[in-house]
Amino acid sequence: MHSSLERVLNPRSIAIVGASETPGKAAERRTRSLIEGGYRGRIFPVNPKRRRIFSLPTYPSVSAIEEPVDLVVIIIPPPAIPQVVRESVEKGAQGIVIITAGLGETGNEGKQIEAEVLEITQKAGVHLIGPNCSGMFSASASMNFLGIPGLQRGHLSVVAQSGNVIDSLSHYARNRGLGFSKIISIGNAVGVKLHDYLRCLKDDPDTRVILLYLEGIQNGNDLIQAARETVAQKPIVALKVGRTSAGIRAAASHTGSLTGDDTVVSAAFRQAGIVRVNNVDELFDVADVLAKAPYPRGRRVAILSEGGGDNAIAADNAERHGLQVPVLGPSTQEAIRPFLLEGMPAKNPIDYGGTAEEDPPVIPRCCQPCLESDDVDAIFITGFFGGFREIIAPHVGPLEEEAARELVNLVKKFEKPIVVHSSFARDEIPALQILREGGIPLFESSERAALALAALADYALGRERARRWRPLRSESPPAACQDILHKVLTQGRNHLTEPEALRFLELYGIPTPAHRIVSSEEEAAEAAGELGYPVALKVISPHILHKSDVGGVALDLADALQVKEAFRGIHERVRSRMPEARIEGILVVPMVQQGMECIVGAVRDPQFGPMILFGLGGIFVEVLRDVSFRVLPLGEGEAGEMIREIQGFPLLQGVRGHPPKDILSLEGLLERVAILFLENPQIREMDLNPVKVQESGATVLDVRLVLEGP
Amino acid sequence: MHSSLERVLNPRSIAIVGASETPGKAAERRTRSLIEGGYRGRIFPVNPKRRRIFSLPTYPSVSAIEEPVDLVVIIIPPPAIPQVVRESVEKGAQGIVIITAGLGETGNEGKQIEAEVLEITQKAGVHLIGPNCSGMFSASASMNFLGIPGLQRGHLSVVAQSGNVIDSLSHYARNRGLGFSKIISIGNAVGVKLHDYLRCLKDDPDTRVILLYLEGIQNGNDLIQAARETVAQKPIVALKVGRTSAGIRAAASHTGSLTGDDTVVSAAFRQAGIVRVNNVDELFDVADVLAKAPYPRGRRVAILSEGGGDNAIAADNAERHGLQVPVLGPSTQEAIRPFLLEGMPAKNPIDYGGTAEEDPPVIPRCCQPCLESDDVDAIFITGFFGGFREIIAPHVGPLEEEAARELVNLVKKFEKPIVVHSSFARDEIPALQILREGGIPLFESSERAALALAALADYALGRERARRWRPLRSESPPAACQDILHKVLTQGRNHLTEPEALRFLELYGIPTPAHRIVSSEEEAAEAAGELGYPVALKVISPHILHKSDVGGVALDLADALQVKEAFRGIHERVRSRMPEARIEGILVVPMVQQGMECIVGAVRDPQFGPMILFGLGGIFVEVLRDVSFRVLPLGEGEAGEMIREIQGFPLLQGVRGHPPKDILSLEGLLERVAILFLENPQIREMDLNPVKVQESGATVLDVRLVLEGP
Repeated sequence: MHSSLERVLNPRSIAIVGASETPGKAAERRTRSLIEGGYRGRIFPVNPKRRRIFSLPTYPSVSAIEEPVDLVVIIIPPPAIPQVVRESVEKGAQGIVIITAGLGETGNEGKQIEAEVLEITQKAGVHLIGPNCSGMFSASASMNFLGIPGLQRGHLSVVAQSGNVIDSLSHYARNRGLGFSKIISIGNAVGVKLHDYLRCLKDDPDTRVILLYLEGIQNGNDLIQAARETVAQKPIVALKVGRTSAGIRAAASHTGSLTGDDTVVSAAFRQAGIVRVNNVDELFDVADVLAKAPYPRGRRVAILSEGGGDNAIAADNAERHGLQVPVLGPSTQEAIRPFLLEGMPAKNPIDYGGTAEEDPPVIPRCCQPCLESDDVDAIFITGFFGGFREIIAPHVGPLEEEAARELVNLVKKFEKPIVVHSSFARDEIPALQILREGGIPLFESSERAALALAALADYALGRERARRWRPLRSESPPAACQDILHKVLTQGRNHLTEPEALRFLELYGIPTPAHRIVSSEEEAAEAAGELGYPVALKVISPHILHKSDVGGVALDLADALQVKEAFRGIHERVRSRMPEARIEGILVVPMVQQGMECIVGAVRDPQFGPMILFGLGGIFVEVLRDVSFRVLPLGEGEAGEMIREIQGFPLLQGVRGHPPKDILSLEGLLERVAILFLENPQIREMDLNPVKVQESGATVLDVRLVLEGP
Repeated sequence: MHSSLERVLNPRSIAIVGASETPGKAAERRTRSLIEGGYRGRIFPVNPKRRRIFSLPTYPSVSAIEEPVDLVVIIIPPPAIPQVVRESVEKGAQGIVIITAGLGETGNEGKQIEAEVLEITQKAGVHLIGPNCSGMFSASASMNFLGIPGLQRGHLSVVAQSGNVIDSLSHYARNRGLGFSKIISIGNAVGVKLHDYLRCLKDDPDTRVILLYLEGIQNGNDLIQAARETVAQKPIVALKVGRTSAGIRAAASHTGSLTGDDTVVSAAFRQAGIVRVNNVDELFDVADVLAKAPYPRGRRVAILSEGGGDNAIAADNAERHGLQVPVLGPSTQEAIRPFLLEGMPAKNPIDYGGTAEEDPPVIPRCCQPCLESDDVDAIFITGFFGGFREIIAPHVGPLEEEAARELVNLVKKFEKPIVVHSSFARDEIPALQILREGGIPLFESSERAALALAALADYALGRERARRWRPLRSESPPAACQDILHKVLTQGRNHLTEPEALRFLELYGIPTPAHRIVSSEEEAAEAAGELGYPVALKVISPHILHKSDVGGVALDLADALQVKEAFRGIHERVRSRMPEARIEGILVVPMVQQGMECIVGAVRDPQFGPMILFGLGGIFVEVLRDVSFRVLPLGEGEAGEMIREIQGFPLLQGVRGHPPKDILSLEGLLERVAILFLENPQIREMDLNPVKVQESGATVLDVRLVLEGP
C-alpha cells in the first residue's frame, strides 16, 4: 500500500474525540461501530464529561492519553477543533479524521477553521481527512468508524464524497452479499485528496476494484493522472452525479462543490480508463464482474441460449452497450452444429433449444469452440439455465450441475469471461450455486448482464491504453516565445496581437498563412500582389481584441483597387469607433478558400485544468455541439482519437464527392497546440478558429490568444 | 371485449388434438396445464391411440365429439393439420389454435399448408391462431394451454411473438408477484393479427396494461392505428427486439420475419403512444407502475430524500429519462421550509435529512405542498424510507407506518403519482408493505424508479395525444392528377417527368418555382429573361430518371449567352450519352439561392406502409442521419412535431445571424405531401430534394416521383 497512508488505514491506536454512548447521536454510532467492529488496536475515547464510554475508560483530552496515538477521529463542534488538532499533532498522530460538518461547506467562518487546521497538519506532515466526512472502514485493521454495522470483508473499495451514499452502498452490498476492503468518506477533502486515496488503493493488495462516488471534481488533472496509473493496475468504476442541471443543483446544495460541464467529465474519465456508470445498480454489477471475471481482449461476444427470443433480446442488449456479435468462422460453426437440432444455424447467436434443455452439457460443448476461436472474446449465455430441471424434468438437475462445473473449468482454461443470464437467477439452485462459487457472474436481467460484460471489455481495453500511454514530449518554451509574452505583459495587455500570436504559433511549428504587415495603401497593394488575390486586411492594434466589432477587418479583396479602398476604410472606421486605439499596422493575408473549417481550442478548465478541444467549424460546434475534449498532457495517438470521435468525422474523410482531408497534418497541429499550451501556463485560453484542413496540410486562419492576468 | 374474439378467449369447450400424457412432450405440458389450471368448461382430448388421457375420455377425431366445441387446439404434425381444420370448421368451432411449428417459418411446403388452412377458416369466418405459437392463457376462463404452470391472475395482458419469451416473462412475473389477465402467443399470425388482439384487449375490462413482445412487424399500419385507439383507453408497453444488426440476425433465424430499420419502429411507436422499453426489467417496471399509479399531467417531478447524495442521483436519473426537476414556486418552498433543518434549501430536490429520519411523518408533510402546487406533476421519494427504524431506532418504525399511510392517502386525494425508491425495498418492513398495498410503486433502484415514472408521464401525454388525434382530411385525388398518372402508366413508364411531377404537386397546392418549357435556344433565353437570372436548364424526357447523370442539367446560368450555350450543351450530351431518349423539351427554372435546404420524402415501408420523412439537406441527412418519420395518415399538428424533433431544428429557427425560416409554410408543405401520397396509392416513392425554406414561404426545387409497377 502507498506507504504514506498506511498508518491511517491500519493504525495501531485510535483516539475518538467527542466519543459518546447517547443513542441516536452520530458520535455514538461511530464509537459503537468501532468497538463492535472488532478493531484490534487500542481505542481511547476522549470526552471530558464522562468517565467511561461503552465500558472503556475515557480521557479528558488527546494530550491526556499516556500512550502513542496513530489516528485521531474528531466529532466535536467546529470552534474546538483547532486546539484538538494541535494536541494531536504534538501527540505524534499520523492521521486526523474530522467528521464534524458545518465547516468549509457552510461559509467563511468554517473556511477559516479549515485553513487553520490545514496549516497545522501540513507543517507537521500529518494527514488531514475531511472535514464533513462520515468516517472510514478498513477490513485489514478491522476498523470501522462509519457508524454502519455489519460490513462484510471483500475486495471492493469505495471512495465517496457523500456520507449518506456510503450508507446506501453498504446496504445494497449487504443485500447482494458483497464485501469491502476499504470504505473512505473524503468529505471536503481539505488535506488528503481523491488522487491520494487512489494511489493508496492502487497498491492495496486486498482491493480488486475501486468504486468512486463523486458529486464535484476538484484537482481533476491530478485525479486523471492518478486514475490512469491506477487503471493500469486495477479497475476504477465511477458514479459521478450532476450530469444534468437538477443533479447539479442537488449536488451543489449538498457539498458546496462546483460541478462543471458533464461532457467534459465523461471525456476525461474515458481518457483515463475510468469506467463510468449511471447508477448504483450498474456500479455493483460492473464492480462485481470486474472483481471476478478474466478480462476479454476485445468486444466480440458469442451469445447462446435455448431460445431464439432470448437470443434476440441478448444480442440487442449486447450491441446497444457497444459489444459486437460477429458471425462465427466456418470451422467454429462446424464444431458447434453437431450439438444443435437439424437445420439450426450456428452463426451467432446460437440456439441450442431442443438439445440443451434435455442434455445441459451441450452448453459447455457449444461454448468450447467459441472460446477456442480467435474471433470471440467473451461468452454470454442467456435464457433459463438452472431452471431446466423445473421446466423439463427433475432428472435434468444433475446434468445442469455437470454443465455448470464444466463452464467454470472452461473459464479457467481459456481465460475468457463467461457471463450468464438466467430467469432463475434468484432461485436457490445447485447448478447456479456452482456458477457463483466458480466466479461466473450470474444475472437475473439480460440487460444488466450485457452492460456488465461491456464494462468488462471497456476496462480491459482502457487498461491496455493506460499501460501504453506516453505523454507527448513537453520541454520548455522557445526563448522567442518568452520574449513575446514578456513584451505583452510588460505593456499591461492580456492578449496578443494577431502578428504576435501567429509568430507564437510559428515558433511551435504550427502552420500559419503567409502574411505581411503594411503601413500604407501602396505597401498593402504590393503585399497583396505578392501573396496572391483574393486577400483579407486586418487591423493590428494592442488595444483591439475583437477586430470585426470595430470594422477592423475586410475580406475577399479581389484587386489592388479594393485593397487600397479597404486599407483606408479600416483606418477610418477604427479611428472613429475606437479613437484611443493605437494602430500598429495592417495585416495582409491571402484568403484560403479550399478545405474544411475546424476549430481547435485550449482552456484551463476549473475542474480538469489544461484541456484541449476539437470540432468542425460553424454549426457543428454552435448548434450540434459536436466536439471532443482531452485533458492535457495529451498522450501519443490521442489527437487522432479526438478527430475520429466527432460525429462529423466522415466529412473529413471525404463525402459527397469531396476528396479526403489531410488528417495526419491536423493531428500534428493538435499535438503542437497541446504542447504549446502546457509549456506556457501564462496562456489562459486559445482559440484557433477557423483552422482550414486541406487535401494536403492544415492552416490556422485566425487565432486569439488570451493570457492570465488583469 | 371485442366481441369477435370473445369465444376464443372464453370458450365453453375445448378440443385438444394431439393431447398427450407422455412426460416431456410439448403436448403433454399443454394438456396438463389446461386440466390443472382449473378450466371450467369441457375438455375433449383427441388422440386415436389412447382411450383416456389424464383420466379424461379421448376421441379419435374432432368429428367424433358429440357435443359442441368452441375452440380447437392443434398439436399434431403439419400434414395432418388441414383435415383437422376442416373437421373443426364443420363442427362449428369459433376458433382454431395451431401450436405445431415447422410451417410457414421453415419453407414453401409449410407456407402451402398455412394458405390452405387460412382459406378454410376465412371462408367459414373462424378465427385462426398461430401456427407456431405456444398457446394461450385467459384468467376469465381459467384457461391455460401454454404449458406453464402456476400463472397468477392479475391485470397485465401479454401478446408475444415468441413462445420462449412467454416462458421468461411468466417466470419473471411470478418472482415479482405479478399476475395476468390474458397471455397470447401469436406465432406466425396467419389468421388473427396483432392488431386484432389489441382491439380485443382494449375492450377487456380485466386488462389494465398490454405488454407486447415483438421480433418483426407485419401489417404495421394496422398495428399503429389499432394501437392509437387502444392507447386512448389503456397503456401499451412494447419490447421490440432487432434494434441492432445481431438482434436482427437472431430474430430472423427465429421467426422468418423480416425486421426493418429500427429508427422507423421507434418513430412509429412514439407516434401511436406505445411506450417502448429496452428489456424485460423495464417491461415489468413500467407495466406495474402503469397498472397502479394515477397518470401525471406532465413531466415535472419533485424529488425528496433525507440525503443530498441520493437526491443528486435521483435528479440525474430523472432528467436522463426526460423528466423535469423544476425549482418550486416561492409559496411551495415556504410551506415546506418549516419541516427542514435551519438553512436547508427547499428548491427541489428537497433534503429533509435530520428531521424526517427521527420523525418520518415529515415526509408526507413535505409532499403535500408539492402535490398542491400546479408546478409539480409527480413525486419521487428516494433514500432509506422504511429503514429508519433500523438506522435510527426501533421506535421510529410506527412513525414510518404512519407516514406510509399518509402517503397512500395523498395519492388518492391529489391523484398525482408518488414513486418511492428505498435501499430497503427488498426487506420485509411494515411501512413498505403499507405502500405496496396502497398501490405506491416501490423500487430498490433509483434509476428504475425514475425510468418507470418517466414512462408513466410518456404514456399520460401519449394518451392525451391519442385522444386528440385527428387525421388530416384525405379525399380523392383531383381528376387532373388521375389524368397525369393514367398517361404515364399507359406509356409504360414508372416515373413522371419533371414538368408532370411539378404539375402534380401544384394540383395539391404545393409551392413549386415558376418555370417554362422551351424547345429552342431563343425561347430558352426569352423564358430566362422573364423568370430572372440566374436560371437552371433541365432536360425533359420520359426516358430519363436521373437527369444529371446524362449531362441533362445546367445550373447557375447568368445571361442569355450562357443559357443558349447550355441549351445546346444539354442536347449534345444527352444525344451522345442516351441516343434513344426522346427529348420533349427543356425546363427553365430560376435558381433559388435564398433559404435553407430541406428534404421531404414519402415511401411505402415494408413494415409500416405509407410513411413520410423530413430532414435538412445535404450532410444532415447523408452523414448525420438527422431525420424524422411518421406513419400516414398524418395527424393534425404532427408535421410541426416532425420539423421540431430533428437535431438541426435551431438552424430553421435562425442562428448565427440568419433570420428565422417560415416553419408554418414548411408544415403546410409536409401536410400536403402526406395527403397527396395517401390519396395516390399508385405512387411508390417521392423525393422532394431540395425543398428551400425561405423567410417567407417554402418551395420544392426538385422532385422525383416514382410509381408502383414495372
